[in-house]
Amino acid sequence: MDVFIEPIGKLINQFSKLPGVGKKTAQRYAYKIISMSEAEAREFAACIVNCKQRVKYCKICGNFTENDVCDICRSRDKSTICVVKEPKDVIAMEKLHEYKGVYHVLHGVISPMDGVGPNDIRIKELLARLDDGVKEVIMATNPDVEGEATAMYIARLIKPLGVNVTRLAHGIPVGGELEYTDEVTLSRALIERKQI
Amino acid sequence: MDVFIEPIGKLINQFSKLPGVGKKTAQRYAYKIISMSEAEAREFAACIVNCKQRVKYCKICGNFTENDVCDICRSRDKSTICVVKEPKDVIAMEKLHEYKGVYHVLHGVISPMDGVGPNDIRIKELLARLDDGVKEVIMATNPDVEGEATAMYIARLIKPLGVNVTRLAHGIPVGGELEYTDEVTLSRALIERKQI
Repeated sequence: MDVFIEPIGKLINQFSKLPGVGKKTAQRYAYKIISMSEAEAREFAACIVNCKQRVKYCKICGNFTENDVCDICRSRDKSTICVVKEPKDVIAMEKLHEYKGVYHVLHGVISPMDGVGPNDIRIKELLARLDDGVKEVIMATNPDVEGEATAMYIARLIKPLGVNVTRLAHGIPVGGELEYTDEVTLSRALIERKQI
Repeated sequence: MDVFIEPIGKLINQFSKLPGVGKKTAQRYAYKIISMSEAEAREFAACIVNCKQRVKYCKICGNFTENDVCDICRSRDKSTICVVKEPKDVIAMEKLHEYKGVYHVLHGVISPMDGVGPNDIRIKELLARLDDGVKEVIMATNPDVEGEATAMYIARLIKPLGVNVTRLAHGIPVGGELEYTDEVTLSRALIERKQI
């Protein structure tokens, strides 16, 4: 006999699909669902279906949107494009409330190890956007090997078109300590030191 | 403008209701839902509603069940009752595959600080079960203050009825180290030492 009755076992399996959730955590989540009122559980379920149904990707930038074109593409300054790996990176940038340009979501980075080439991510779509008065492209892919390689690859394609290509600065994090900063970051911070 | 579009924001709120889930984790879960196929998302949602609808509490022992009476109450030796705080404790005990008796889930423990008295948990229901040939009641509430107090309270009610009342043993955990065992546990282990 299985220790879980079927509906609980099935729900635990579903929760286990979420990132970073193991059997034990999934179990806790399932107990929480059981302890909810039926109305609450139904609302939870409805939100999942609703989110999946309504959230699409913007035809222009690839960001999350409920319409064909996202609010950012419709309302913001199109002369600067910030290129990121995933829609969640757009949200990270938007939380700053500082960037006023538009975005381009690649939906991945070039990673030969995982079989992802330049044609598997939205590079063509980015190049197609460069006609109408784009002055600067900010490469904001993650500062890891694949992110750096993708930034370099795209920069080499764009520069000949006369568009300014920039990259987010590397350096020691604000509030960090020299002692605990890794050597690569510290050496980049030294090389890219600024006059004060 | 909010950084999340409405359906995503709502789903994040729902996931935040799960135990130990903060905004950041809820966000990751929401992205995972968006990356699923619609069929997968629907199945996830259906499992939540299904689990909430089908899981009830056993009329006899208070454990999770899909029927009026759970499988354990229907098929097992009724001369021993193991008293636990919550249905999840039944699952913890069942994972041992060693205990052959039935359970009684209190759905709480006596805790004056939280306004929970003896009448707020399923003690009456336990006493009502003691008629028909029950030989032993194993108190398996948690080894914390409330769990101990509840075990003592129930033991004092049951003993006069001529039923044997036992408590799970305290001691150093198997595979643990003396050095890292807390003093209360170590002193209990010393007092309850056994001949070898």
